[in-house]
This record gives sequence, C-alpha cells and structure tokens, in this order.
Amino acid sequence: MSESLPPNPAVLADRFNTLRYDPEENAVILLNRALYPLRKEFVVCRTVEDVARAIETMIVQGGPPLAYAAGLGLALAQPDPRAYRAAADRLLATRPTADDLHHIIPAALQHALQALDTGTDPKAAVLTFVNGEIERGNRVSRLCGHHAADLLRDGDTVLTHCIAGAALCWMLWIAKHQGKSIHLIATETRPYLQGARLTAQSAVEMGIRCTLITDGMPAHLMSQNMVDKFICAADRITLDGHITNKVGTFQIALAAHYHGIPFYVLGYDGPDPATPSASDIQIEWRDGTEVLHCLGHRTAVEGIDALYPAFDITPPHLISAIVTDRGLFPPTLISRYFDS
Amino acid sequence: MSESLPPNPAVLADRFNTLRYDPEENAVILLNRALYPLRKEFVVCRTVEDVARAIETMIVQGGPPLAYAAGLGLALAQPDPRAYRAAADRLLATRPTADDLHHIIPAALQHALQALDTGTDPKAAVLTFVNGEIERGNRVSRLCGHHAADLLRDGDTVLTHCIAGAALCWMLWIAKHQGKSIHLIATETRPYLQGARLTAQSAVEMGIRCTLITDGMPAHLMSQNMVDKFICAADRITLDGHITNKVGTFQIALAAHYHGIPFYVLGYDGPDPATPSASDIQIEWRDGTEVLHCLGHRTAVEGIDALYPAFDITPPHLISAIVTDRGLFPPTLISRYFDS
Repeated sequence: MSESLPPNPAVLADRFNTLRYDPEENAVILLNRALYPLRKEFVVCRTVEDVARAIETMIVQGGPPLAYAAGLGLALAQPDPRAYRAAADRLLATRPTADDLHHIIPAALQHALQALDTGTDPKAAVLTFVNGEIERGNRVSRLCGHHAADLLRDGDTVLTHCIAGAALCWMLWIAKHQGKSIHLIATETRPYLQGARLTAQSAVEMGIRCTLITDGMPAHLMSQNMVDKFICAADRITLDGHITNKVGTFQIALAAHYHGIPFYVLGYDGPDPATPSASDIQIEWRDGTEVLHCLGHRTAVEGIDALYPAFDITPPHLISAIVTDRGLFPPTLISRYFDS
Repeated sequence: MSESLPPNPAVLADRFNTLRYDPEENAVILLNRALYPLRKEFVVCRTVEDVARAIETMIVQGGPPLAYAAGLGLALAQPDPRAYRAAADRLLATRPTADDLHHIIPAALQHALQALDTGTDPKAAVLTFVNGEIERGNRVSRLCGHHAADLLRDGDTVLTHCIAGAALCWMLWIAKHQGKSIHLIATETRPYLQGARLTAQSAVEMGIRCTLITDGMPAHLMSQNMVDKFICAADRITLDGHITNKVGTFQIALAAHYHGIPFYVLGYDGPDPATPSASDIQIEWRDGTEVLHCLGHRTAVEGIDALYPAFDITPPHLISAIVTDRGLFPPTLISRYFDS
C-alpha cells in the first residue's frame, strides 16, 4: 500500500470530515449533503429525532455515512434501556435499503445496554464503538479504492453514477499517484444531483478531470466508444451477487453489458451476510414530489404525480467484478469474501 | 377513422396552435417551448435570423415543428434569389439531426425561386407550400396516432420519453375515446425537461393520468412489471430501420428489450429516403453548459465541463414496430413504407 501517498484532499474521502459527535455541544454535527458544495452548511442535531430527520431528508446520505450518523445519534438518547431501544427503532426506521444502518444500530444498542448493565457510561460505549466503525470504514474505503485503482489504465475514461463515496475518492487519488491520467464522467443523478454536486466536487478537489452528463446519456456515450469502464458503489450486496444502488445503475449496467464495457462495483466490506438474494432487499420508495422539483424549484406542470424508487437492483451477470477491501470477487462468488 | 371524435384539447396536437405566420405583423409567431407551460409566452420573429435563433435555442423543438417554423421563416427573406438562398442555408444550419428540416427548406426554396422566375409572389408561394405541409403533418399525426391507439389495451401503462408530439396526443385521445384507460409514465428528459413540461401538460389537457419519473428510473419500473409498452417518436428513421431520437431513448430501448416489453416508435410519415443507415445520421452535440443548469439555475459545481449529445440511435433489433400514418412496419422493412 502506498504509504508515501499525500493525504487525500477530497472532503468525502474521510468520513470524519462530514460527520462527528461534538462533546461540548452534545450534538451530532453533519455536513448538509443535500446542498454541498453549492452551499457549505453544517447541521447540528441535538436529539435522536433530529438525526433521524437528517437521514430521512438526505442531509446525510450514502450507506456507510448515514449508518455512522445514526450510530452517533444513538448516543444522544437518554441513558436508560427503554430510551435506547426506542431510539434504535426510530433510527432503523429511517431508510430500509442500505445494510450498514441495520448492522451498526443493533450493535451500538448492544454496547449501550451492556454498559448500563455493567454500570459504565453508555454514551461513551456507543461513541467508542461508532467512532471505531468510522475508522474501520475509512480503512476499508482506502483498501477498496486501492484495489479498484489497480484496475485502471492510464488514459481510461471512467463513467460513474451518483456518489460512490470514499472508495471512489481513494481509487482516483491512488490512480493519480500511480501516474495514470483518468477522465471521470459523472451522471448528474436526478433528483438529488449527487453526481453534479458530490462526485464532481470530489473530482475537482483531487484535480481529476470531470465531465457531467444527464442520466439519459450513458448508453450513447458507450456507443461512441467514449467510456472504458463503468464503476459505482452498492448500498447492499446480496450473498448471490446482486447489488442494489442508486436508481439508474441498473440501466447503465444493461448498456455497459450490451457494449462489452466492464462494470466494477466498489463493494467496500463485502456482501450483507443477512441478505441471501434480491428478493430479500427492500427498495425504498421516497416521496414522488422530490421528482417534481430540482434544488427547490418546481420543474413539472401541476396535475400529475411522480414516483421515486430510490434504488434499483442489478443482477450478477451484468457485473464484471465486485471490488472489496479484500480484493476482487466475481459477483456470484462474493460470499467467499468471508473466507478471505 | 373516428369522425365523431371530439376535437383534441392538447395544444400540441395541432401545430397551428404553436406556430404560424402573422401577415399583419409580417412575423413568425412561436410558442416558446423552452418554457411552456411553466410560462406561456409567444416569441415574435421578424427576420430569418430571429427564426434561426429560435430554433437553435429550442424555442421551437421537435422534428416537424422546427421544420415548419423554419419554412415559415424563409418567407421573411428579402424577395430575391440570393437572399432566399442565404436564408435557406442559415435555416438548414440550425440543427442537423431531424430530417424534416432538410426536406422542407429545399422544397420551400424551390417554390420561392420558381415564383420569382414566373413573376408571382414568392412569399405567398412559400407560405402556401409550408402551410400545406403543416396541414399534411397534422393529418399524418392523427393517422399515426390512430394506428398506435389500436395497439393499446385497456389498463395499459405506457412509458414515453421526451415529447413524442402530435401523434402521441392523438394516440392517447383516440385510445381514451375507444374506452381504454391508459396511464402514461413520462421521463422528465433532462436537461430541457420536455417530459415534465410538454408531455405532462399534454396529458393533463386530455385528462390522461400522468406520472413523472427521472431519466434513470425506466429499467427499475420495468423490472417491477410497472410498464406495459414503451412508445416514443423519432427525429429520423433510416431506410434499414435505425431510429434517432432524444438522447436517453437508446438505453430505455435496451431495458425494454431485456424485459420483453414492446417498444413502438411513432414514425409519422416514415423513413428518410435520403438516409440509408445509422452512419448517415449526424448527431447534434449541443452546448454542454445546458447540462450544468436546470431552468436557468446552476445545478453543478464549478471546475467541470459537460457533454450534451442531443440524440442517440436505437438499432432495429430493439424496436418492435414503427407506427406510421400508413400503418405498422417491422423496423427492418420500414422502406416498404414507400410502396404502401
């Protein structure tokens, strides 16, 4: 691993840049990802409910980051077993699709209850556990990014969708320091524009050339030989190699498959051991009115409704490899992650 | 044909609602389709250059409508051969992809030059020809829509992309009066939002249920059995059955093919006899800065660029049938249109 690598300048490469517990304020402080970087604004959450609403309104988004925010949020509960259990239920109910939340909250709850049982400080127990998870997640991201960087060739044009998070930042940063010139094409990712904001901003921070397209353009660019690889993240990976990710991923994967373009999934710390296959994933349907607006401005006529499935599912035969902190796996063999 | 059908209430069903020559003003009056119906505004074009710029800036868009606007615009040239030829060149240079413009302008120019030769009024000759073409186009749209309506079943959910124009309006209106309940799902169609504005508004005007989605959602809805048919228009059809249409069409067609969902193309008056195959189509690349904005608001960070291919090409094996005013054709047999 490249120990001589300069620190990654992308804000999203280190989760502590965007979310943390502040002991003086007794609050969880979150970078508002619904606006960043068009506006740079931190949201101060003083209650469990504040954190839950921040997750629901996409102030924090992305599978691991929202799970970390929820974990830190649990530390804001009153220090008794009933309050911790209610807080855990509230936080688990925020978003159903990504698996990280559904691992971190039950584990953090156990740490709190154990501390109460043994007469130690439950808040400290939760914070120690969650901050340790954030540190672990940062290490996972860097390792995953390193394995992905090794897949890239000098001169590659990489298409990505939504924001593939810290591992994408590390992939691009490590590839750059391997002497590879990479051109990133980002889909804008309506309705929240994570591509136009978060992905593009991360590229700018790292000095990576970035070109924006709308969500309808990937297949055409592929047909013009303008894309070498399609790389995105996954909010959940099943044991049989399906991935769920921001809606739009599936049809880009279909287009990549049609054109013979490799599709690599940044799989961070692997599949969810509790999710055997696609039918075990709950796809979140968000409020359709979000589709009728862009950055707060109405974009559609009155008198219609809208649908907003937040994620879609891509089957394993459309995926070239899943890249994790433990290396690459063919999607149908991703359950071997736990043996490696 | 349903002679007892009530008049179609959709503004876009009759091209004379959105573009016309006004003899008192000596101007071409265009509904501003870049804003409609969020704002209802008519643009008055007093010169050939005004009309050319209106076409370039999408004040008028859609293959036939922009061709009609250009044709009427030719009538604004000074009545001498050199001015007419320069005007025709300027109007032909506005947009390269749709074929209608490249048929109407040379024909309208011939009418003008012939009138000058024979000492008759060239402006009247141009206007008579172009208004006749608009009337013919209106009839073609209604016939094409009628054949498409016959493909729909009561209860169908039809996905569409961009604005498929007058034939889509007629398809929905005739299906409704055949007693069929149709649910239209429209992609918003970034960056210009033709789906969120023009398609959705047309549906509202006709009392057709309409649901908006982003351009990344078609494949997921198909995977959930929420789409029965995919139907869109074509800006140009080649003699071997390729179609070019608003960028995004190709990847929706790939998703429809994968899911076994029929894809019907509203082909109006058939293929372009001057375009043998896909390599003969020039895809327009518009200014990428349009992708960095939505309705005039900046949506992306600074420091990046953007690409805007306005169209893409879908090959015949992804198309179930091309629907014209003369009936249905398998895409590879579309050149039989001229024998029918």
